[in-house]
Amino acid sequence: MDLAQQVLAGDRRALARLITHLENDTPIGRAALAALWPHTGRAHVAGVTGPSGVGKSTLVNEIAKHLRSSPLSPLPTGEARGAGVRGEGQTVAIVAVDPTSPFSGGAILGDRIRMRDLSGDPGVFIRSMATRGRLGGLARATGEAVRALDAAGFDLILVETVGAGQSEVEIARTAHSVIVVEAPGLGDDIQAGKAGLLEIADILVVNKADQPGADEAVRALRGMLELGRSKRDSDWDVPVCRASALSGQGIAEIVQAVEAHRAHLAAAGQLAARERERVVEEIRALLSEALMGRLMTRLANGQFDAAVERVLDRTSDPRREVERLAQET
Amino acid sequence: MDLAQQVLAGDRRALARLITHLENDTPIGRAALAALWPHTGRAHVAGVTGPSGVGKSTLVNEIAKHLRSSPLSPLPTGEARGAGVRGEGQTVAIVAVDPTSPFSGGAILGDRIRMRDLSGDPGVFIRSMATRGRLGGLARATGEAVRALDAAGFDLILVETVGAGQSEVEIARTAHSVIVVEAPGLGDDIQAGKAGLLEIADILVVNKADQPGADEAVRALRGMLELGRSKRDSDWDVPVCRASALSGQGIAEIVQAVEAHRAHLAAAGQLAARERERVVEEIRALLSEALMGRLMTRLANGQFDAAVERVLDRTSDPRREVERLAQET
Repeated sequence: MDLAQQVLAGDRRALARLITHLENDTPIGRAALAALWPHTGRAHVAGVTGPSGVGKSTLVNEIAKHLRSSPLSPLPTGEARGAGVRGEGQTVAIVAVDPTSPFSGGAILGDRIRMRDLSGDPGVFIRSMATRGRLGGLARATGEAVRALDAAGFDLILVETVGAGQSEVEIARTAHSVIVVEAPGLGDDIQAGKAGLLEIADILVVNKADQPGADEAVRALRGMLELGRSKRDSDWDVPVCRASALSGQGIAEIVQAVEAHRAHLAAAGQLAARERERVVEEIRALLSEALMGRLMTRLANGQFDAAVERVLDRTSDPRREVERLAQET
Repeated sequence: MDLAQQVLAGDRRALARLITHLENDTPIGRAALAALWPHTGRAHVAGVTGPSGVGKSTLVNEIAKHLRSSPLSPLPTGEARGAGVRGEGQTVAIVAVDPTSPFSGGAILGDRIRMRDLSGDPGVFIRSMATRGRLGGLARATGEAVRALDAAGFDLILVETVGAGQSEVEIARTAHSVIVVEAPGLGDDIQAGKAGLLEIADILVVNKADQPGADEAVRALRGMLELGRSKRDSDWDVPVCRASALSGQGIAEIVQAVEAHRAHLAAAGQLAARERERVVEEIRALLSEALMGRLMTRLANGQFDAAVERVLDRTSDPRREVERLAQET
């Protein structure tokens, strides 16, 4: 069996190997993903984002645990899923998008240790995606990993971004449902408002709701949401959930909100629209990488460096050099 | 006088107009920046980044105030600067990179209100850069705005990123000196370690150092830094400064650290290396935008959409369509 066949058969190690191939953008990874492509498009993908320190990892952990222990959980997948991913409840994959931290690995390791109680369960798959090389690469690799998990038959894929910057927002917004997590008392303001996160939220969660300031945070978020309408979808009322991931409170409500949002998307014909948006983003990201790669191989030795030199000694400017280099395609 | 000449003459409104042109990527903006290019390369650029809620805006405000009130501040610029930017101390420009927040503008406005005590001073220029359209665009526009401010004669340009995601890190790391700000008590861990920020730090600041947990944060950062060496420059000891932007404590030390870092870069020949790195990033960002733009204009009407359709109905996969589309260049 080749790698794609192994993944379809439910081989977890093969799946992990494939994702590493996708991270490194190898020919083996590309071939396997092409073979798996017809098997994609069934999973529900939920992005989980928000400022640092709000407890996203713990929350994602609790959502996964909840789904595994609720056999009647009604997320409709439309058809029977592949072998190997069945279990009591829905099967869940977690993709944690972590910037590389060569200093420690500590904090990230910490998150994964919190996940330990899930790791013996074959219906759960946990994977961290690291920044390898340049920005666009992480979004591309994350998107491809989600497709691989989708083909492997997971019902729900949770994409958790560790930071809350523009690229993390871009990664989260390619999900079907976007969960934005906030916590009380992170500085003076509602940080999610600052970070431009509210506009992409389908579901808002105030985590650490047992801490002081939770009521104010909920009120402030409701106020920011004005009439509770989503900016992306005016027919959807964005719910503001209160949760405490550490005590497990409010997790069932979040899961229900995701299910309600998926049902809404399907009923409103929005699922297809979001899926199209995801594909457009995937093609754009790949195309951008491909065009730069092609140009770099076509440039004569030292041509790029010579352009840099001319800009540095101020005999030319970046735009003029870019015009010249782009002619080479 | 054309726009570039007005900017060189110290016209602040012309400078603001130019930056708007650069944000919108207009021909007027491109022409003006090309004309200004020979006048760039003199400012010192410091990036200020860190997790949300650590008080970066207030800190940047205090650094600017301090520089304006210290006439003997020794940042060497090598030559006399343009008219219109002189004052008591060094002239300072602040570029705040804000993701668009269509919900409020409130938090961002709040930051700017805190800056009000600076805005009457002609030696200070404050500008927010918003995300207009796609990711790469913000990095490109921010880089170009910094060049415009450089040509306008500002001694120090502080580039403050509101979020702390991968793209913000990319924007901050194109500075000569990178200041990473942390605060005590933002969740369980040192957030900067999580966000991959420590590897790019030249100077670390624990802000809100009058709050509980500041000593622990300083110790944790020192521990993460191991022997205090910079990951980018093994000859530089990364200082860990304690500050309270609200009370003004520790600001002088941060300014001294920036000056020491600039002197170190100059002495070690690293200033030229960082400048080269910045130019390489600028050319890459522009090239990537240019290549996508050229391809899109060359594609026949509906060709991109047809590719999306084939991927959506699973008769093709993204890589295959990207191969096909890239042939059109």
